[in-house]
Amino acid sequence: MPELRKDPVLSRWVIISTERAKRPHDYKKEPEPKSGGTCAFCPGNESMTPSEIMAYREEGSQPNDSKWFLRVIPNKFPALKIEGELEREGEGIYDKMTGVGAHEVIIETTKHDETLSTMSVAQFENVLWAYKQRTEDLKRDDRLRYVMVFKNHGFRAGASLEHSHSQLIALPIIPKTVMEELDGSKDYYHYKERCIFCDVVKQEIRDGVRVVAENTDYIVLCPFAARFPFEMWVMPKQHQSAFEDIKTPDVALLAQLFSDVLKRLRVGMGDPAYNFFLHNSAFTDSNIPYYHWHFEIVPRITRTAGFERGTGFYINPTPPEDSAKFLRDLELAG
Amino acid sequence: MPELRKDPVLSRWVIISTERAKRPHDYKKEPEPKSGGTCAFCPGNESMTPSEIMAYREEGSQPNDSKWFLRVIPNKFPALKIEGELEREGEGIYDKMTGVGAHEVIIETTKHDETLSTMSVAQFENVLWAYKQRTEDLKRDDRLRYVMVFKNHGFRAGASLEHSHSQLIALPIIPKTVMEELDGSKDYYHYKERCIFCDVVKQEIRDGVRVVAENTDYIVLCPFAARFPFEMWVMPKQHQSAFEDIKTPDVALLAQLFSDVLKRLRVGMGDPAYNFFLHNSAFTDSNIPYYHWHFEIVPRITRTAGFERGTGFYINPTPPEDSAKFLRDLELAG
Repeated sequence: MPELRKDPVLSRWVIISTERAKRPHDYKKEPEPKSGGTCAFCPGNESMTPSEIMAYREEGSQPNDSKWFLRVIPNKFPALKIEGELEREGEGIYDKMTGVGAHEVIIETTKHDETLSTMSVAQFENVLWAYKQRTEDLKRDDRLRYVMVFKNHGFRAGASLEHSHSQLIALPIIPKTVMEELDGSKDYYHYKERCIFCDVVKQEIRDGVRVVAENTDYIVLCPFAARFPFEMWVMPKQHQSAFEDIKTPDVALLAQLFSDVLKRLRVGMGDPAYNFFLHNSAFTDSNIPYYHWHFEIVPRITRTAGFERGTGFYINPTPPEDSAKFLRDLELAG
Repeated sequence: MPELRKDPVLSRWVIISTERAKRPHDYKKEPEPKSGGTCAFCPGNESMTPSEIMAYREEGSQPNDSKWFLRVIPNKFPALKIEGELEREGEGIYDKMTGVGAHEVIIETTKHDETLSTMSVAQFENVLWAYKQRTEDLKRDDRLRYVMVFKNHGFRAGASLEHSHSQLIALPIIPKTVMEELDGSKDYYHYKERCIFCDVVKQEIRDGVRVVAENTDYIVLCPFAARFPFEMWVMPKQHQSAFEDIKTPDVALLAQLFSDVLKRLRVGMGDPAYNFFLHNSAFTDSNIPYYHWHFEIVPRITRTAGFERGTGFYINPTPPEDSAKFLRDLELAG
């Protein structure tokens, strides 16, 4: 059983994973990007994956047959396990809990070589729908407090399989950075009685210099204190604290803009590795006036993320205004 | 002039660097590890570096001649600049300040191919002395609040030059993770009237399972909530909040143990890339009962640090007890 452990000084939870356990000797060989062979995520190979949790499929097709558009499956090597009681326990001055949670894979497309930045906007919509529906479903499990939706694109960003997919990890705790955002934005709200993210959106629209793209309902910007070159945040213009509350017509608008900026990143930077993750309100308190969901897109272009791990301190060699201008000014064919 | 910018939600400061500024197009070529050519850090090539700030030298030798054992020089492409006024300014809802600070390079050895894990313990002592002396000196500058001492070993860890060196960045702010450690340990102190790090040391000595090595005054352990395989913390057994207050005989004891565990990492894991950084009390309040300096050594073995950047959430596939046992049990020749 995996275990969640808390750093006693920083209150930072860590998963000590057992399913993906590695013996010290396993690290001696550098992992290689896998290529070729049979892809478990391609249509026809459904038997190579665990049974699907949900899928968008052709009418009349059956679970786990090959007539799907998008599939959600349990991760074969889950960081957390859905079965079991959530038990908290002390170990001297330390705290730990059983590693209860969910770890799922969203197979975004049937086409092995397609990515989020090359697929149709309609298919991108399906991906966002899957994020929404899986979050709504997992929210009903009262052992869980947060769903972390994330994407690793490219080997350098941690992707171990080529076929385009996202992941989600549902947790019995709220991750540290999200907790800090909740606390920080709550402080601002107490002081100003306004959502700080709404204020950011307003100022960015007014200033214009850090805006990459926008439509009627969504905006993508390079944040003022960007940690990385080409870091982008995708945000709703109107206040909304829970991503899963997104309205049906808005999913299409979000897909259009999200797809557009990932295209810009691919065309402008030569398909770099990137991660994105959804920062969302927690299950325990999801409809709140002070927090505002957003996706953070973090390209893995610089190698400077060494000591940043341990200091929380970042040096960004490219001002976000320059990153935004470059991405905004790109001419996208088609 | 570089600029420090604050994320309004997370209160995280970021350096927007101008000296090392990169245009968007500069990223298209993957950086390569540099090898061959003339090394600016080798003796005889002192004119290729900025003038030294301090050095340990042969008796009778002159600053910037080639008769040195260890040199400290300003970084040629500094993230922050030592000249100028510290000015704080608002920009709508955002906060920024001028990028005043110091960025120095400690050339740890004269031998191009020597590293911290292959050099003599006496030379390792010199490196620690340099950390101590530079910190004491920079502490006198009342614009500054913290010195971040860190080391990038290996290309994957962000080292851009082969010749073994550490760096320090002196900052007008306290980095986020250090601030959080100060706050977290202060809370514990208010509750228990004990230093949490002292309690960690006591429990780890009693448990034994996460101890990698120890001597009379220092201990190295894999922390209970380790984020990474083979993550190690180097700590004094007795309470000491400011690293620069280390006593003369203790420097040798620390060098002996620090050198020993870096050897274990090299021999056991095939000289992996790693970072280490000193977590120290701040200049503003350096002699305190609740904080305890320590070095954190973070090997760059796993590729999984993608979404961790944005969530503060880590999955560690190797329990720290396994990492510690492996490193502890290694037979070191000589």
